[in-house]
Amino acid sequence: MTAAFDSLSAFRALLAAAPPPDAAVREGAADRNGQLTKPPGALGRLEELAIWYAAWRGTPRPRIERPQVLVFAGNHGVTARGVSAFPAEVTAQMVANFEAGGAAINQLSEAMGARLTVHALELGRPTADFTAAPAMSAPDAVAALAAGWQAVDPRADLLVTGEMGIGNTTAAAAVAHALFGGAAADWAGRGTGLDDAGLALKTRVVAEGVARHRAALDDPLEVLRRLGGRELAGMAGAIARARAERIPVILDGFICTAAAAVLERAAPGALDHAVAGHLSAEGAHGRLLQALGKQPLLDLGMRLGEGSGAALAIAVLKGAVACHSGMATFAEAGVAEG
Amino acid sequence: MTAAFDSLSAFRALLAAAPPPDAAVREGAADRNGQLTKPPGALGRLEELAIWYAAWRGTPRPRIERPQVLVFAGNHGVTARGVSAFPAEVTAQMVANFEAGGAAINQLSEAMGARLTVHALELGRPTADFTAAPAMSAPDAVAALAAGWQAVDPRADLLVTGEMGIGNTTAAAAVAHALFGGAAADWAGRGTGLDDAGLALKTRVVAEGVARHRAALDDPLEVLRRLGGRELAGMAGAIARARAERIPVILDGFICTAAAAVLERAAPGALDHAVAGHLSAEGAHGRLLQALGKQPLLDLGMRLGEGSGAALAIAVLKGAVACHSGMATFAEAGVAEG
Repeated sequence: MTAAFDSLSAFRALLAAAPPPDAAVREGAADRNGQLTKPPGALGRLEELAIWYAAWRGTPRPRIERPQVLVFAGNHGVTARGVSAFPAEVTAQMVANFEAGGAAINQLSEAMGARLTVHALELGRPTADFTAAPAMSAPDAVAALAAGWQAVDPRADLLVTGEMGIGNTTAAAAVAHALFGGAAADWAGRGTGLDDAGLALKTRVVAEGVARHRAALDDPLEVLRRLGGRELAGMAGAIARARAERIPVILDGFICTAAAAVLERAAPGALDHAVAGHLSAEGAHGRLLQALGKQPLLDLGMRLGEGSGAALAIAVLKGAVACHSGMATFAEAGVAEG
Repeated sequence: MTAAFDSLSAFRALLAAAPPPDAAVREGAADRNGQLTKPPGALGRLEELAIWYAAWRGTPRPRIERPQVLVFAGNHGVTARGVSAFPAEVTAQMVANFEAGGAAINQLSEAMGARLTVHALELGRPTADFTAAPAMSAPDAVAALAAGWQAVDPRADLLVTGEMGIGNTTAAAAVAHALFGGAAADWAGRGTGLDDAGLALKTRVVAEGVARHRAALDDPLEVLRRLGGRELAGMAGAIARARAERIPVILDGFICTAAAAVLERAAPGALDHAVAGHLSAEGAHGRLLQALGKQPLLDLGMRLGEGSGAALAIAVLKGAVACHSGMATFAEAGVAEG
């Protein structure tokens, strides 16, 4: 298939036209939740998750049977500024590792029963250094969004998007800084392992990038094009497609959440079908989640990317939905309601 | 088989003789962890969990293939004091619900690939009201410990213990208060849904129970016998057996942790093979975990018991071990180490 859009403004229009969850199903699911054989509220967040999931899927007793994990990879011109502890070649090496089944996300996807595919987005053609020029041309940005859009399996019933791209915490920090303000230092972190000098440099680079493009940053999709990267755009495109298909999404860490935040800023409510899978140890992730009003499901000190934290959180969603749809009601089980 | 002990002192001796983890395997697993294709530490707690698990299993690349969930049920004489929002009959009704597959723990065990068995411990013969007499005779306590000990499948590679027992947050609060001091109000919580008056009553009952048995409470196994209950003893027996078999354990919420704490106080280190699966919304659980030096894996506002929070945390252990044992090393994958 071809993508449903051929320009940033067509993509924006799709975001604005995205369908809402099913309010009647939400009510039905909440009603069912109240009848299940447990004290009211005793399953905590699992209860709200199941009701939310049911409303998006449009069925009061859903199942999660086809979770999909998409990993997008891209290279970043800004690595020329020395902002990563790893050389840029590692992006392609890790893509080969994903394809051979040797990375963390391979193991986690398999353990959680999810189908994983990896999408290397023009690794031989890095984005431009955003301190000197827009990271992507408009056609490049549209192509990356479209790659994400097309990668989603419409029959999937849960989506995780992850990424690999040496230098992409710098791009994500610039995107977050442009979207949410504050200081560059609020958003730049140690990524895969920068020392103090590296962090100071990265912070300057983020500030420079945002200053360079300041005039165009009122438009979130321009923020993505000028400061982001292909794998960020790929994730954004996939998350938008999931919304169009009413497939719930689990957000991963800082980079994934920065990409997703572009959608929310472009069309408020565009992330209503998404939960935060985990709190990354990358410092600014918590700030970003707070700005989006999302409370993470897991907090295990992970900071790997690849979709790893979100993939692990598939188990929480599966557990929530399994309880909701599989438990007996008080009446069915003949249990007194207290 | 018959149990390996026929008295509380024989059980105590078994605890003291429990085997340690394999230090050489721990080192080998830590070494392997440092070579996997990820930045150092990027999998956060998953890394320490995998190394810990490997050391207990005695193999540097373990798999989790046979997780076992045991639910013990018991009835409590102290319910006569009006300490629960639910009638005591609900214990047996919920056991029937477990057996019919309709409870939360059935769905969670299935979703996490664990085998669940339910052990109703003399529901027709509740413990004595601990404000008037010891909850259990010594033979009754030994029988419940032995039921737990025997319920563990020695071929299991991960154990979750859960419980059902109307009134058992009161018993658990009394056990925790006796083991760790403080005030009764520090340990009594709302359980399945007490109002303010109910909570005040429960707090008084806990204080009365501990005062009644004060002279005998230096011995943690006497604390279990006098203030606990059959399902608490069942969990303690199972957790002790898991230690003897070097099967790692995931602790559930307040009641499970109170039962486990008895072991740790009776033989320091007796819970080294156990991690805290989650932080329960039952207020005193966090205090109890802190006293034991355990940091919970999940914090989802759950407070159901049944082993439900720990069962969900099986996924975290599975994910950790899958990454550790399945990922490629930098050398295997040809990835630069940065």
